[in-house]
Amino acid sequence: MPKVALIMGSQSDLPTLQPAIKRLRSFEVEVEVRIMSAHRTPDLAANFSKSARENGFDLLIAAAGKAAHLPGVLAAFTTLPVIGVPVKSSFLDGMDSLLSIVQMPPGIPVATVGIDAADNAAILAVQMLALKYPELEPKLKAFKAEMEAKVLETDQNLQKGANC
Amino acid sequence: MPKVALIMGSQSDLPTLQPAIKRLRSFEVEVEVRIMSAHRTPDLAANFSKSARENGFDLLIAAAGKAAHLPGVLAAFTTLPVIGVPVKSSFLDGMDSLLSIVQMPPGIPVATVGIDAADNAAILAVQMLALKYPELEPKLKAFKAEMEAKVLETDQNLQKGANC
Amino acid sequence: MPKVALIMGSQSDLPTLQPAIKRLRSFEVEVEVRIMSAHRTPDLAANFSKSARENGFDLLIAAAGKAAHLPGVLAAFTTLPVIGVPVKSSFLDGMDSLLSIVQMPPGIPVATVGIDAADNAAILAVQMLALKYPELEPKLKAFKAEMEAKVLETDQNLQKGANC
Amino acid sequence: MPKVALIMGSQSDLPTLQPAIKRLRSFEVEVEVRIMSAHRTPDLAANFSKSARENGFDLLIAAAGKAAHLPGVLAAFTTLPVIGVPVKSSFLDGMDSLLSIVQMPPGIPVATVGIDAADNAAILAVQMLALKYPELEPKLKAFKAEMEAKVLETDQNLQKGANC
Amino acid sequence: MPKVALIMGSQSDLPTLQPAIKRLRSFEVEVEVRIMSAHRTPDLAANFSKSARENGFDLLIAAAGKAAHLPGVLAAFTTLPVIGVPVKSSFLDGMDSLLSIVQMPPGIPVATVGIDAADNAAILAVQMLALKYPELEPKLKAFKAEMEAKVLETDQNLQKGANC
Amino acid sequence: MPKVALIMGSQSDLPTLQPAIKRLRSFEVEVEVRIMSAHRTPDLAANFSKSARENGFDLLIAAAGKAAHLPGVLAAFTTLPVIGVPVKSSFLDGMDSLLSIVQMPPGIPVATVGIDAADNAAILAVQMLALKYPELEPKLKAFKAEMEAKVLETDQNLQKGANC
Amino acid sequence: MPKVALIMGSQSDLPTLQPAIKRLRSFEVEVEVRIMSAHRTPDLAANFSKSARENGFDLLIAAAGKAAHLPGVLAAFTTLPVIGVPVKSSFLDGMDSLLSIVQMPPGIPVATVGIDAADNAAILAVQMLALKYPELEPKLKAFKAEMEAKVLETDQNLQKGANC
Amino acid sequence: MPKVALIMGSQSDLPTLQPAIKRLRSFEVEVEVRIMSAHRTPDLAANFSKSARENGFDLLIAAAGKAAHLPGVLAAFTTLPVIGVPVKSSFLDGMDSLLSIVQMPPGIPVATVGIDAADNAAILAVQMLALKYPELEPKLKAFKAEMEAKVLETDQNLQKGANC
Repeated sequence: MPKVALIMGSQSDLPTLQPAIKRLRSFEVEVEVRIMSAHRTPDLAANFSKSARENGFDLLIAAAGKAAHLPGVLAAFTTLPVIGVPVKSSFLDGMDSLLSIVQMPPGIPVATVGIDAADNAAILAVQMLALKYPELEPKLKAFKAEMEAKVLETDQNLQKGANC
Repeated sequence: MPKVALIMGSQSDLPTLQPAIKRLRSFEVEVEVRIMSAHRTPDLAANFSKSARENGFDLLIAAAGKAAHLPGVLAAFTTLPVIGVPVKSSFLDGMDSLLSIVQMPPGIPVATVGIDAADNAAILAVQMLALKYPELEPKLKAFKAEMEAKVLETDQNLQKGANC
Repeated sequence: MPKVALIMGSQSDLPTLQPAIKRLRSFEVEVEVRIMSAHRTPDLAANFSKSARENGFDLLIAAAGKAAHLPGVLAAFTTLPVIGVPVKSSFLDGMDSLLSIVQMPPGIPVATVGIDAADNAAILAVQMLALKYPELEPKLKAFKAEMEAKVLETDQNLQKGANC
Repeated sequence: MPKVALIMGSQSDLPTLQPAIKRLRSFEVEVEVRIMSAHRTPDLAANFSKSARENGFDLLIAAAGKAAHLPGVLAAFTTLPVIGVPVKSSFLDGMDSLLSIVQMPPGIPVATVGIDAADNAAILAVQMLALKYPELEPKLKAFKAEMEAKVLETDQNLQKGANC
Repeated sequence: MPKVALIMGSQSDLPTLQPAIKRLRSFEVEVEVRIMSAHRTPDLAANFSKSARENGFDLLIAAAGKAAHLPGVLAAFTTLPVIGVPVKSSFLDGMDSLLSIVQMPPGIPVATVGIDAADNAAILAVQMLALKYPELEPKLKAFKAEMEAKVLETDQNLQKGANC
Repeated sequence: MPKVALIMGSQSDLPTLQPAIKRLRSFEVEVEVRIMSAHRTPDLAANFSKSARENGFDLLIAAAGKAAHLPGVLAAFTTLPVIGVPVKSSFLDGMDSLLSIVQMPPGIPVATVGIDAADNAAILAVQMLALKYPELEPKLKAFKAEMEAKVLETDQNLQKGANC
Repeated sequence: MPKVALIMGSQSDLPTLQPAIKRLRSFEVEVEVRIMSAHRTPDLAANFSKSARENGFDLLIAAAGKAAHLPGVLAAFTTLPVIGVPVKSSFLDGMDSLLSIVQMPPGIPVATVGIDAADNAAILAVQMLALKYPELEPKLKAFKAEMEAKVLETDQNLQKGANC
Repeated sequence: MPKVALIMGSQSDLPTLQPAIKRLRSFEVEVEVRIMSAHRTPDLAANFSKSARENGFDLLIAAAGKAAHLPGVLAAFTTLPVIGVPVKSSFLDGMDSLLSIVQMPPGIPVATVGIDAADNAAILAVQMLALKYPELEPKLKAFKAEMEAKVLETDQNLQKGANC
């Protein structure tokens, strides 16, 4: 069974990440939700990342705000893919988080999604996992078809004058 | 054998992408380099993406500048992971490219790397591919060890007064 | 009768677009309001745009937020003018939407208006339509005169001490 | 014959605008190239715009840098469509020009294209003109097809190993 | 008696400008408050500015938001000093207004104050007027002393433990 | 005779300020050019500003880059108008200088001009001085007329095909 | 006993600074809280800074918003370390404050912390003070251990399903 | 003897840091120059920081570009003060580096100086060290006096017409 760690820098990020937890579980991906800080628990973060592969994780998702070092720090200690979610902090609309996560130096990439886009991080994780777990692929197709159907339905309702 | 498509919006992006081509080949990943425009050849882009999985591609890397729609447009037509490389255009230092790629709407993520960070896109691709092709994992470890060794060496040379 | 399509990426954009619908109808322009997503319903968007001219549309107005690809994607498939409305998303005050719409690559322009400026998009549409439908021109003149009169009236009221 | 005014705030903008002049002429659109300043020749700008319609102009293209008021000032005096080209000035990469042009107040839109995107302004102008001059439409189609063919050709050359 | 015009682009700017009106009157400066739009009443704005000197105005203060052309447009038609107040609009925190006002082209300066800083515009106006009306100078000195005294008082109260 | 102090934070700003010196002298304004630093010679700056009025200065122009405190610091010690010129530093295109100068707190305005816009600072200074020295007013009118004539001439030359 | 001055530009900054006062006192650092304005009480600020060392202060913490000159102005008059806290003002999310504080010219540094990060300013102050007062060092270690323990506890609670 | 570590993320940062090395040595501060990467040699960085105090370092200076995690990562493992120098990278003028360094989370401050301001980092370091090593204080005073004298000299030379 595919297994993912979803790591946040602070418990205050949990509401932002709930959609990712729900999405991953809807794809029957096991998700371990953790709170670790690159700066307040640096040893925990380092050790978790170093042993993530042998502990059966397929990839890591990390969310952080402001000087959002967590995804990059985790990426330093593993060869697993790391997905980074920039969290909107109280200032600068998350631009600081975005740049701190996406502008990684040569050799240590972080797969960055949009600001607060935890749901997209989960979907990207499933797309990666589908490389290894082919049973996820038809689920992704179905998910995509469902999204399309929903937009088509709102469009048709609008056409019928239901919403206008 | 792992197979990746590396797609650029314009031939002028080729020099920026050369490190990615080289890096992927160094990991013995087959790479098909293509030029497609989300706006000038939209049908080609749509068709390529739609059939990418059945044509044996494991994932797509797309690079574009300015209103950099290419990675997102490709992601719309496939469930394969899409890695986006924001290319620095002549204005705004690539901030327009970055935001156009990373701020994708719910449901259609693009795994975004730093501005002009084509090499990191390739490494991220290999990390994803290692989920499916376990033989890549020791190569990634070796690559990481080599990077570390190089930094340690420059540090030691500096210590020896060789560079200061 | 002049005919315009007003397309939004998500139903949540409808309140932002209502002033445009109202304005277009006040000029007796037929307006078809649609919901289409460049990423969730890419085929619908492509097909709609490809057949827009033969379906009697004179131009398209498209509104989108974040990585706002919709106007550019529609512009890729038609030679009709496309007006883009950057919608303010929850982050970055719409700067991401603006750059994703206005910074189009060579060959495929989008006529961009201000952030959330749906009303201005409608007025711009009428100005374009007046090239083909000369009966719109006196209406535009009257609209301009009315705007001027309103400002003059508030100025005179202010002078009379009514508002100060 | 379709007729367009291409107005710049300063002669130093001429090199940036040359592609627009060439493009408009390639579509057999008559183009009158003028230098007018919203601030140094405000009366000329006002009078030109006021009489533009009766002087046979179908639309105006205006380019300006820094506090780029020219397109908006012209739009104040006419009901013709005004296309604005933000010119990159020596600071801020043209962001000041872009915001000064695109963020017009309610009632007076300017159809804004990308920074220094004079060629796109010309193509947008032809798209608008095609509403009135249907003979332009097949030319636009041909232009679009030619662009597509060029990208396809560079893609095929790249495939053949010619450029890689 | 010193006389100043305080001009806003829209009545919605009036609350932002009230501190300026109050400040100017506290210095016994006559102030004419007007609503004029650079885009909706361009002729009124031009004529007002052209005749401002002969109508006894010593200088103009103009406030506007978004693509804030009003101060620059007024400055085009007069040799009187023009003070510009960038008004925070609903997007971009007034950065668009600031750049549209301060980045004027060579030859036509606008004396720009901070975003929404109407009170500072009034004080700057009094400083300029004091060049011509020396009786304002001691009032400015007194105002400055009063400001200093107020800060000293809050500091002393804080020291006394009154506020901590 | 009108007298102005032109103060820069560092000798490296002198080339940026030469146009202001030349412009002021062309209006027969006496200009004292000084180098003072708000941070390296704070006492000199404070004393200069405190005694500026009694030393016969009508106003101050101050130019500085980066955390450009000089204009604000001078304004703290005088009731004379202070014009601030944000100097483009090696980073951030002068945005840091602009914000450090224009965003002054309530009570202490600085009349800010555009980035590196020393010439405009000089013209603004002359406009202020004309309040006290009416003989400057016809010179300003002539200057404005000359600017207009130059633009008209370049426009006419362009019309004649001389430059196109 | 270690002694620090905590200086704010305006009483409205006090709530932002309360965490710093509390933190410093928890480390048994004497803190003198003052209100001084670089612009409204420039002499007070200069004199306070000039005599800070002889008055027994070990370092200064200064907080200010907008064109936040206070930390830099204090740094001009002392060789004590000055820590600057950029306060978020009503516009631009504190970016103006940050740049006005951090971008100091050569020779006069300000140790800048994050926007509104008064608590971090206090911790940084204690770290500096520990150079002179070694008894602070074990307290800092304990503080760091306590932070780590808290994150570990929230992580463990989350693991136990208490929060998820 | 005071002892400082000056750590850079990459050897390419060495030229930017040379002024800091020179400045520290001019104050007779022992400086150990090291190359360590938060991402490529994370264990080295962690171990160095953990043992910095016992190895006799008084404080750390760390410089990094892009997603500049190095200063924050070092600060995570020590209670010594850490000074961060944002290095201008090839994009975004160092804004990414600045935000990644200054916007640290609660509890782990980094004393941030301006972009590429290595010399200021050294001076700040000496100011901190002077808390512990009082013999540095007269040197700082002399340095400050020398800076002042230099500005006064350039000012006087300018007055003499030597440079104008």
